[in-house]
Amino acid sequence: MVAGSRGSRPPRSVVLLSGGMDSATCLAEAARRGEVIALTVLYGQRHAREVRAARALARRFRVRGHHVLRLPLGPLAPSALTDRSIAVPAARDHRSRIPPTYVPARNTIFLALALAVAESSGADSIYVGVNAIDYSGYPDCRPEFLEAFERVARLATRAGVEQHRRIRIVAPLLRLSKRDIVERGEHLRVPWALTWSCYRGGRRPCQRCDACRLRARGFREAGVVDPLVASA
Amino acid sequence: MVAGSRGSRPPRSVVLLSGGMDSATCLAEAARRGEVIALTVLYGQRHAREVRAARALARRFRVRGHHVLRLPLGPLAPSALTDRSIAVPAARDHRSRIPPTYVPARNTIFLALALAVAESSGADSIYVGVNAIDYSGYPDCRPEFLEAFERVARLATRAGVEQHRRIRIVAPLLRLSKRDIVERGEHLRVPWALTWSCYRGGRRPCQRCDACRLRARGFREAGVVDPLVASA
Repeated sequence: MVAGSRGSRPPRSVVLLSGGMDSATCLAEAARRGEVIALTVLYGQRHAREVRAARALARRFRVRGHHVLRLPLGPLAPSALTDRSIAVPAARDHRSRIPPTYVPARNTIFLALALAVAESSGADSIYVGVNAIDYSGYPDCRPEFLEAFERVARLATRAGVEQHRRIRIVAPLLRLSKRDIVERGEHLRVPWALTWSCYRGGRRPCQRCDACRLRARGFREAGVVDPLVASA
Repeated sequence: MVAGSRGSRPPRSVVLLSGGMDSATCLAEAARRGEVIALTVLYGQRHAREVRAARALARRFRVRGHHVLRLPLGPLAPSALTDRSIAVPAARDHRSRIPPTYVPARNTIFLALALAVAESSGADSIYVGVNAIDYSGYPDCRPEFLEAFERVARLATRAGVEQHRRIRIVAPLLRLSKRDIVERGEHLRVPWALTWSCYRGGRRPCQRCDACRLRARGFREAGVVDPLVASA
């Protein structure tokens, strides 16, 4: 609650924090701007490893709060990321259509949950790590989707209706390649060793899945050593 | 999944089913049109009683599937409906501003979850029981909010992007008073005895809270006996 203190306190953001390199970079951006409340949504079995990364990142950036919400989407909306019976593809052609790792309405759900946190905590921004590579395949990673959601945020909330306080959807990585993200993260001193990207979620990154390959290419092109792989 | 069968099967809807009289009437509308998948979201302690009503209604209307999702919104976004330390008002002035029973971003979250179910099950409609009395106080019960969410639904989903299949947000009660809803429900043979409206969620409706008073007035004005109260 912000009653009585809104004028004096620093700007506050909600960050959707999966624990991957993209959301870690968003967290670093938001932390530089002001206070952060992190929201991690556990939506399937495969990503259990990521929550450890998210917790470590939240501690490192001294967030004001960190909500970890268990929300099993698998029964609602089967996908390769929530259902072990659907294979995670080793890698995909980025000119192809929507990939099997797409989780129906995932970003809509995540943004809706972040909106609840933002409204009740008096945050004025929601940071989400969608980026240029993702939105070639995922419908809910495109700028027009984010703009449409921002309109929903304005119409749905007490903040928007009574207080004329807009909650912005901020996607700082939207038009960045993975290489750009690594460079941006280096500038912001993102502790890459604390992040986790691999879809498979074992003890070490598999280095074969889509997420591992994208990550490796980003680091290689940026000329940066990925400590998560270097320590293997 | 609808592969191969979309042309021949009846239209399919997702119904947000709380177990109250409004969502029960929506369920009856949707069931008359075609197949139904019901979605009940348990978002706080107070509404535990409603899930029993929702299950009974789902059985009565022979839904194709019924998802019951436990999603504790209380820690994310405190409200009188999710936090026992905030009093539920006995009744409120309907000319007033947003009431304390407003749950931040609730309908956005519910519609986002319903969107996931709709997309993965091949449904073309989401029925939601928001109505004319609610939207005087709740920002996320207004037609402009529903229209904005429908735009999100089109942009966020594979259905909207690749298949040019729009998922409609249907709010059949939007402009109805509680009296109108009772009359509509009577016409559709809604089993009122299976529904539950009371915010307090005891064994019997408290008949003092906002929801009980609205319900009682609707039945009284429609000249219908509410079996839930008559049997008390």
